[in-house]
Amino acid sequence: MPHMSRAAQLVERSPFFQAAGPAAMADILRPSFTQLLPRGATLFEQNDEPDFLHMLLEGSVGLQASVEDAGRTMVEIFGAGEVFLAPAVVLRLPYLASAVALTEIRVLMIPADVFRDGVARSHDLCRATTQLLSRHWRLMVDQVVDLKLRSAEDRVARFVARRISEESGAGDAALPESRIAIAARLGMTPETLSRALTGLEKKGRLRRGGAGATVADRKALAR
Amino acid sequence: MPHMSRAAQLVERSPFFQAAGPAAMADILRPSFTQLLPRGATLFEQNDEPDFLHMLLEGSVGLQASVEDAGRTMVEIFGAGEVFLAPAVVLRLPYLASAVALTEIRVLMIPADVFRDGVARSHDLCRATTQLLSRHWRLMVDQVVDLKLRSAEDRVARFVARRISEESGAGDAALPESRIAIAARLGMTPETLSRALTGLEKKGRLRRGGAGATVADRKALAR
Repeated sequence: MPHMSRAAQLVERSPFFQAAGPAAMADILRPSFTQLLPRGATLFEQNDEPDFLHMLLEGSVGLQASVEDAGRTMVEIFGAGEVFLAPAVVLRLPYLASAVALTEIRVLMIPADVFRDGVARSHDLCRATTQLLSRHWRLMVDQVVDLKLRSAEDRVARFVARRISEESGAGDAALPESRIAIAARLGMTPETLSRALTGLEKKGRLRRGGAGATVADRKALAR
Repeated sequence: MPHMSRAAQLVERSPFFQAAGPAAMADILRPSFTQLLPRGATLFEQNDEPDFLHMLLEGSVGLQASVEDAGRTMVEIFGAGEVFLAPAVVLRLPYLASAVALTEIRVLMIPADVFRDGVARSHDLCRATTQLLSRHWRLMVDQVVDLKLRSAEDRVARFVARRISEESGAGDAALPESRIAIAARLGMTPETLSRALTGLEKKGRLRRGGAGATVADRKALAR
């Protein structure tokens, strides 16, 4: 990837790059390219065979799954720095979900066969992939527990809290995605999401703003 | 592991062993040992640091997660051949769930540091781990979609159908776990599980027996 600059910086900051190291990444970055896509763009469709592994550099992407006669939902939302969907690429299996840009996005497109060859050739890349997949498994376990045990308000509180860095412990949580997308991710209706946000605001745990929420105490919000 | 015979056969049949190959497995099997544990035994507790990676050789294990003031649920149920929980071992992070024997079990205990060293040394073992983690990610995505979109009856139907081999397409689905465990895995009460099974039986899609259900047409059941 010649002449990248902003993109290169964003790539190097990603946890996956940090884990794999520059040498292992160089081989898979060379044939890769970045795309700037508008909100609403579809990166891939459920049931497609993967042609690319994606690394999100800016913006927000939603994994949307449909079930015949049962509708559509949001499986997960990935932010900048995340790599997806390695499982489909590794296993050469059709995607279980579509990927839709929930904001304007900048995304690195890594050809699927280049990634698979990379994992087969580079032990470092392979190890970084085990770390990536391990982190993603834990995201899903967390969500399953959320859906099965936590109230709508608690789910919303934890979702907002995760948008604030743990180090700062307070600040503005950006929520650039549509209310519909966030509600689907949290397994609730947009109305329930609104009620939960109102409830949290009344309790003083957050203050709603234009494109997100201000949180005085991240820990107290996430409890 | 000298003098294993039955255990060795079970280990070699597991998808993880098949993916890693005998050479890569030999190093991590040498310091490993098997345990026979009764129903109800706890393999590890939520928030524990992992000391072992587990490969289930016989029986059924449930991943149980608790949330303070919100109760307890079943994140996933693993059957014979499955390896768990690699993500906690890989990342050296505390478990997000406890593992409880839902039946009598036979389990291979692979010391966590032996596994981590193995993944660091053996590229084959590392690649097998990416495949394992990829399969497990897809299990969780499937469950999230299930919980968000499918009716109780459809969830039960798919759970039972997965207990029958795809090749045979029909037969007896063993359900040796307690109704409480299965219901929690499916995100419903035991009463809802019973109602769903009755509903499926009335529609002729399964016939309940002592320790499971008989299914004449797996595809029709899973739809």
